[in-house]
Amino acid sequence: MIDIEHLRHINAGPAQKARERYRIGSIEPTSGVAPGFTQANMIVLPRDWAFDFLLYAQRNPKACPVLDVSDPGSHATLLAPGADLRSDLPLYRIWRDGRLAEETADATAAWAEYPDLVSFLIGCSFTFETPMAEAGIEIRHITDKSNVPMYLTNRPCRPAGRLHGNMVVSMRPIQASRVADAVTISGRFPAVHGAPIHVGTPEAIGIKDLAAPEFGDPVRIEPGEVPVFWACGVTPQAAVMASRVPFAITHAPGHMFITDIPDSAYHV
Amino acid sequence: MIDIEHLRHINAGPAQKARERYRIGSIEPTSGVAPGFTQANMIVLPRDWAFDFLLYAQRNPKACPVLDVSDPGSHATLLAPGADLRSDLPLYRIWRDGRLAEETADATAAWAEYPDLVSFLIGCSFTFETPMAEAGIEIRHITDKSNVPMYLTNRPCRPAGRLHGNMVVSMRPIQASRVADAVTISGRFPAVHGAPIHVGTPEAIGIKDLAAPEFGDPVRIEPGEVPVFWACGVTPQAAVMASRVPFAITHAPGHMFITDIPDSAYHV
Repeated sequence: MIDIEHLRHINAGPAQKARERYRIGSIEPTSGVAPGFTQANMIVLPRDWAFDFLLYAQRNPKACPVLDVSDPGSHATLLAPGADLRSDLPLYRIWRDGRLAEETADATAAWAEYPDLVSFLIGCSFTFETPMAEAGIEIRHITDKSNVPMYLTNRPCRPAGRLHGNMVVSMRPIQASRVADAVTISGRFPAVHGAPIHVGTPEAIGIKDLAAPEFGDPVRIEPGEVPVFWACGVTPQAAVMASRVPFAITHAPGHMFITDIPDSAYHV
Repeated sequence: MIDIEHLRHINAGPAQKARERYRIGSIEPTSGVAPGFTQANMIVLPRDWAFDFLLYAQRNPKACPVLDVSDPGSHATLLAPGADLRSDLPLYRIWRDGRLAEETADATAAWAEYPDLVSFLIGCSFTFETPMAEAGIEIRHITDKSNVPMYLTNRPCRPAGRLHGNMVVSMRPIQASRVADAVTISGRFPAVHGAPIHVGTPEAIGIKDLAAPEFGDPVRIEPGEVPVFWACGVTPQAAVMASRVPFAITHAPGHMFITDIPDSAYHV
């Protein structure tokens, strides 16, 4: 992993352009957008919940690898100087008492409800899709221009304070002959979920129907392909629901924050 | 990195025996003890300081890679079921208002002063010494049966809340022909400080005299060897001092908590 202090000279034009589009209202899933720049899940909580969440993330690092945490009341991040976390994601979800209250392209109004919100940016598996594609592994949801399918599993996360919930996973169908390569390549990126948590047998982790993901879109599974499951940064949203968190702002699944940090920074 | 849930069957006899010795009062630096089992730095803080510290660790992951965090008031850890963090380290330091108040082989009395202490266990570079030695790289402080030398650098950590301070590094002299191997091997263990932060030129990071480390013992540097510097889990103690933290319990430098987790669990 490279210290982001060393990355100030990187030209992050494609990432900045994408954020500008989202700031003025464009909405799209971000898989395949600004390739080579790290994308992040986001969850924003009142300061009173910040320790519980940071501990939840520490105890569940495969699902919740933290890339940056803002100071209370700030909407800035070191990962993209000049970005505004209130408006630079394509789509947000506002949560009240553990329920989805609203989806919006601009969270500025919701953000103003609390003076001390803390933003957590969490690694996203889109980061290792670029090197997987470069290795000739087809990423089906990119081919088909859809959102990655995500499933709520039966695997409980390790609780922290008032937070508990099950792990959410993303799924990519991979040809059996390339599963080992997909494991190896993603395993080099532990800060963005790393290697899969499960290969094959969806029913063993509580997934009854691959065609009915809880988040995102279903994808084609071709003959000879195995469903491969990675821990997913939508896991905090499952915790918000299960734990009835009073207030939270998150990204909408698949609609990520695009940072200025090159994917290679998270390669070990 | 392997989920510790999968490690329940490991025979951790050598780690347990070392902790039992320390529990009844034996004192020694732990480098080379119970080889193959992960060792950890420790810092224990009142609940009121826990978010600041966890954020400090998140923002300075090379120096403060968190392996486990206890619940407030608990002195147990998943990393060593049955261990007692109050007594199972060989030597503790008790800090008051940012100053070292006491060194003791048993922290039970100090622990009783606060009802809500939170314990943080932090990765230790001793973990990658075993694979480095297996690759034929001499670890000088093990050869010479001394404590590893540690230095306070001029490199500020990224602050978090009330916490600030400079990075502490450990140093190992490495033959120039083996520096690349030492980098590669340690880089495979990002959860225990990973690759070095600096190779050669100690003065560039504010180290005036290699023979006068702030913590631990000086070591011989032979002709053809280069001083190699790794981020060190004593960095939290530098933050306790710089930030005048009212109360903290830590391990004494070099006198670590030995866990039941095999080093290989932190290999990526």
